[in-house]
Amino acid sequence: MTTQNPTINETALARAANEARGLAMDAVHTCSSGHLGLPLGCAEIGAVLFGHALSYNPARPKWLNRDRFVLSAGHGSMFLYGWLHLAGYAVTLDDIKKFRVLHSKTPGHPEFHWTEGVEATTGPLGQGIANAVGYAVSAKMAEARYNTPEHKIFDHHVVCLAGDGCMQEGVAMEALGFAGHFKLDNLILLYDSNDVTLDAMAAATQSENTQKRFEAIEWDVQQVDGHDMTAFLAAYEKAKAASGKPQLIICKTLIGKGIPEVAGTAKAHGEGGAKFIESARKGLALPEEHFFVSQETRDFFAEHGKQLTARYNDWVKSFEAWQKAHPEKDKELQLALKGEPPADLLSQVPEFPADSKIATRKAGQEVLQPLAAAVPWLISGSADLHGSTLNYISASQDWGPDSWSGRNIRFGIREHGMCGILNGIAYDGLFRASGATFLVFADYCRGSIRLAALSGLPTLYIFTHDSVGVGEDGPTHQPVETVSALRLVPNLDVIRPADPEEVAGAFAAALTRLEGPTLLSLTRQAVPMLNDASAQQRREGVARGAYIILREKGDLKTILLASGSEVQHAVAAARTLGEGVRVVSVPSFYRFDQQDAKYREAVLPASCTRRVAIEAGATGLWWKYVGLQGKVVGIDRFGMSSPGDKVMKELGISADHLVEVVKSLA
Amino acid sequence: MTTQNPTINETALARAANEARGLAMDAVHTCSSGHLGLPLGCAEIGAVLFGHALSYNPARPKWLNRDRFVLSAGHGSMFLYGWLHLAGYAVTLDDIKKFRVLHSKTPGHPEFHWTEGVEATTGPLGQGIANAVGYAVSAKMAEARYNTPEHKIFDHHVVCLAGDGCMQEGVAMEALGFAGHFKLDNLILLYDSNDVTLDAMAAATQSENTQKRFEAIEWDVQQVDGHDMTAFLAAYEKAKAASGKPQLIICKTLIGKGIPEVAGTAKAHGEGGAKFIESARKGLALPEEHFFVSQETRDFFAEHGKQLTARYNDWVKSFEAWQKAHPEKDKELQLALKGEPPADLLSQVPEFPADSKIATRKAGQEVLQPLAAAVPWLISGSADLHGSTLNYISASQDWGPDSWSGRNIRFGIREHGMCGILNGIAYDGLFRASGATFLVFADYCRGSIRLAALSGLPTLYIFTHDSVGVGEDGPTHQPVETVSALRLVPNLDVIRPADPEEVAGAFAAALTRLEGPTLLSLTRQAVPMLNDASAQQRREGVARGAYIILREKGDLKTILLASGSEVQHAVAAARTLGEGVRVVSVPSFYRFDQQDAKYREAVLPASCTRRVAIEAGATGLWWKYVGLQGKVVGIDRFGMSSPGDKVMKELGISADHLVEVVKSLA
Repeated sequence: MTTQNPTINETALARAANEARGLAMDAVHTCSSGHLGLPLGCAEIGAVLFGHALSYNPARPKWLNRDRFVLSAGHGSMFLYGWLHLAGYAVTLDDIKKFRVLHSKTPGHPEFHWTEGVEATTGPLGQGIANAVGYAVSAKMAEARYNTPEHKIFDHHVVCLAGDGCMQEGVAMEALGFAGHFKLDNLILLYDSNDVTLDAMAAATQSENTQKRFEAIEWDVQQVDGHDMTAFLAAYEKAKAASGKPQLIICKTLIGKGIPEVAGTAKAHGEGGAKFIESARKGLALPEEHFFVSQETRDFFAEHGKQLTARYNDWVKSFEAWQKAHPEKDKELQLALKGEPPADLLSQVPEFPADSKIATRKAGQEVLQPLAAAVPWLISGSADLHGSTLNYISASQDWGPDSWSGRNIRFGIREHGMCGILNGIAYDGLFRASGATFLVFADYCRGSIRLAALSGLPTLYIFTHDSVGVGEDGPTHQPVETVSALRLVPNLDVIRPADPEEVAGAFAAALTRLEGPTLLSLTRQAVPMLNDASAQQRREGVARGAYIILREKGDLKTILLASGSEVQHAVAAARTLGEGVRVVSVPSFYRFDQQDAKYREAVLPASCTRRVAIEAGATGLWWKYVGLQGKVVGIDRFGMSSPGDKVMKELGISADHLVEVVKSLA
Repeated sequence: MTTQNPTINETALARAANEARGLAMDAVHTCSSGHLGLPLGCAEIGAVLFGHALSYNPARPKWLNRDRFVLSAGHGSMFLYGWLHLAGYAVTLDDIKKFRVLHSKTPGHPEFHWTEGVEATTGPLGQGIANAVGYAVSAKMAEARYNTPEHKIFDHHVVCLAGDGCMQEGVAMEALGFAGHFKLDNLILLYDSNDVTLDAMAAATQSENTQKRFEAIEWDVQQVDGHDMTAFLAAYEKAKAASGKPQLIICKTLIGKGIPEVAGTAKAHGEGGAKFIESARKGLALPEEHFFVSQETRDFFAEHGKQLTARYNDWVKSFEAWQKAHPEKDKELQLALKGEPPADLLSQVPEFPADSKIATRKAGQEVLQPLAAAVPWLISGSADLHGSTLNYISASQDWGPDSWSGRNIRFGIREHGMCGILNGIAYDGLFRASGATFLVFADYCRGSIRLAALSGLPTLYIFTHDSVGVGEDGPTHQPVETVSALRLVPNLDVIRPADPEEVAGAFAAALTRLEGPTLLSLTRQAVPMLNDASAQQRREGVARGAYIILREKGDLKTILLASGSEVQHAVAAARTLGEGVRVVSVPSFYRFDQQDAKYREAVLPASCTRRVAIEAGATGLWWKYVGLQGKVVGIDRFGMSSPGDKVMKELGISADHLVEVVKSLA
């Protein structure tokens, strides 16, 4: 396909570029912090994108068919704020004046859910690239699911701007390999190649032929002068028109362009150039007025906005026609956008036979199938472990170029990339994204999991093999500290269900939770059904985080607390110990801590201080519930290689040992 | 340089290869778990390496100039155990029969410190590649520091065997980019390219031109048939002879070769082929006897061992001559190998002026310089943040091809790769490795940090910007849960010092600790000196994990606990609250929990249950010390973008708020 020769208003865009530089300089100077290098070095790129190339509608920032723009180099946030302001988004000049001020719309790094037009929370390097790949995945799925021969509801592009920092990060490289393999030709990565990193010239730490590196992983590559707007636009249009491969445009730029004293050096990266801004402003032909935007620029964007609105209105017509022609598709799309699963979700999951003895990962497999039917926008992926994590949606098939509507994503052995991509899918809001690996490799994913929690993304992690019960694979594969280390992440709901019915409750709780991510911690090994509580009690108990799974006979004397595969030991110990012993199953600390004081007191009465907790993992967090007079039976060391039941016994995770410990209490 | 035509005893090596296959099949079959794919697919590679190419001495497994072999694909552990056994290491046939049995020398994945000849704990994919890069770094440093024109004490190679799983991982890609940039031509990476991953054919998740990908990052690349021993050896010798670039040999292999029913498929990966082993044994011309090693193979390795010993003895002669000629170098090497710093370490660090008010990262910079002089084998690196983490050893220079003896490593924006490389340096045991980044990015590094803890490596992490005190960069860069999530890792000592004198104590404690890693959590922002305790008390207090920094006047009524930058608030609150208030500084949970009961009771008497802790981070772990009747002032949410002091106040981290909370207690 040939590319049309693009024409742009170079004068207007160059003026806007310099005024955007002025906004960045003034904002950084005012708060004495932040990063000038990218906003100045990429000003012409910003002008072409927001002044010409991108499809967007500031009045409808979540327009379904907008081009998605992700600033992976999130430290260059003033680039984004400046252009969002000029483009007419709800980022006012006053907001820009409050750059990095408490509660302002312009925090140090872009924050999703906080500032309109920000498509991803970025800053931790490399993440935005993975997010953009996720957006591209979501777009391919949406096109396959919703477009019809008559109506192209979705045909947008995903554009990502990244610097050397992002390009060196492993999470980005995993996602880039994934994008090349899956031929995500709707993805355009702009590499702000300025030869400088924070500490030094990039040549101090990197030597590579970027073009060759990307061609080797099946990307198309172009290189342009990032300050030559016509050349950049030509490359961009060519990338948009290409098909079959993701697109890299290497934009050679001068970091900090506009402040000659620092431009092209590591000093240009941060706020170091701010002291030269008065002379820099003159060099850029900016007036003395700070935070200056000319009437010409306002007029230019007003005019451009009209064109964008016209394009949007055309789409709305097409969309409304599509809605009429395909009400069933529209209904699904509206439900997916809302995100809420059916209210009767749990009724779709049959109860397990009372004598079941299966692993909670296996229970997860069985629970997942009816839930996937009830929530058709649910997507499930695994980092090369579908055969072990058991989260394949059997009614669907692999996702990929041969079946973009497939609901099972093979992420490869790319755990961090997977979680970054899941975030991108979740940012897009069209699909509910879940992914799986062994729990111990949550450590590889924490960078992305944290951002999901921070950004309030309802990603779902189905992480299995959740304790030393892993067995023979040994300590490298046996999580010990992992569950508790995840429980500490704010806004992350970690659920460790005890038996198949708690698994049902856990999946339902996860799908119902929209304000943040949920991580399911599932066993490799079989667990018995805990029938002292009814199936319904167990399912509903999960939603409250902790509940009485075995009520004491007679007066309450002792409380045993446990989670997951250790609840069975607490129940067995209670039987041995006799009357007065209550067992509390604690699948989710997060949920229990959110219950009101009355419920918490009902489950854990303050009057009973004789408490022992048991979990096949680090003990540290349990003291919150057992107190100084209680005890915790756990594992504060690494595991060992041997069949799981033997490791458990060797490390004292058993009903017998729990009984001993309880008896040792006053 | 041309390569000599290598000659090998193909008959003997082929026999050994098939017997190694037999050992792997029998071991996996006996324990019904483990991975057959690599031991069978790489048997000829193993035969050439251990039967011909590698320099080693089983009687001196830590021989300084041995070639280091790292099995990055750790799940193929029976490859390593089989060849270590045949080569004469302390891995007996009985050990192999106990593969994956509790306490055996042959755990599911190779464990450093546990089995002689195992150079790295591997299994979590990608890590071994980064470790090998670290070994190569260590070798370059050792050559520069210890070799002389007359004596080459170090001229060994580092050989790493990795599969598709390792090659897809971000941590590996970061390390590979680092190795190419720094021209680590002593590194040979063998890629077991068998076109299969655990879940599926590799083609399901990866499309790349591996040769081109590696050439793009400045590696030399060859490709051979991994079953053609002559061809493989020729490639290996060529790689050994090459200079200026790290070396990749793509070895095309048939996974599970020897079990026709599964070979070449994903089923060959794990233990699935074990049920076919009887017919497979016949196909390999192995006798019915399980765990069979022929006399011919025993004789072959005995003979080969003589050659290896002769080579070793030649080296010893050269080494002894070097020792005589360079006693000062020898003394340093012996001290470095022992690892213990001088006993009077802390006396080398001047006390800080009593009115200092500097950030603990800045204090770290000042403390590091005399300690680096006292511990010349200490190395310091940073992930592109030397200017912020302030851990540059100013008496030395950048490490790299122009100065292999430099002690400051620029890791680039490769946090996970950095920590994997640090592990490799630590495994080698010749240098004390430290690395730095912002604390929040510890999340990127956890995979490697966990392995350092598991393997008992004395790596040192100098992680700065350790709370919401980070300020304007906002929640993406403000650790909240991070410190506590790291405290949960077994055998990791996390130290969060409160003032410059505690920083001195923390660095000394870290350098003195050899049995595992230490992580220093340092502030971005300035903190006051806490002069209520003497400098010596504060320095020594760190070593005990917690100590009384302000003793109560009169009877003890209340205990305030704090760490790091919040200790100042506890001290101020105590003054406001009046008599009976004790302040306990808790720089290290790990160390305090290891103190005897008497010391712990002296610091935190059980009789005093009126306790409040304060830390600008997640509260979860502090309940262990304050109990159900106590309170914790902390931050169980993400931070916000604003100057750090404003964020602290906004989130309730202040002496005033602490006073309020204490007053609210009964």
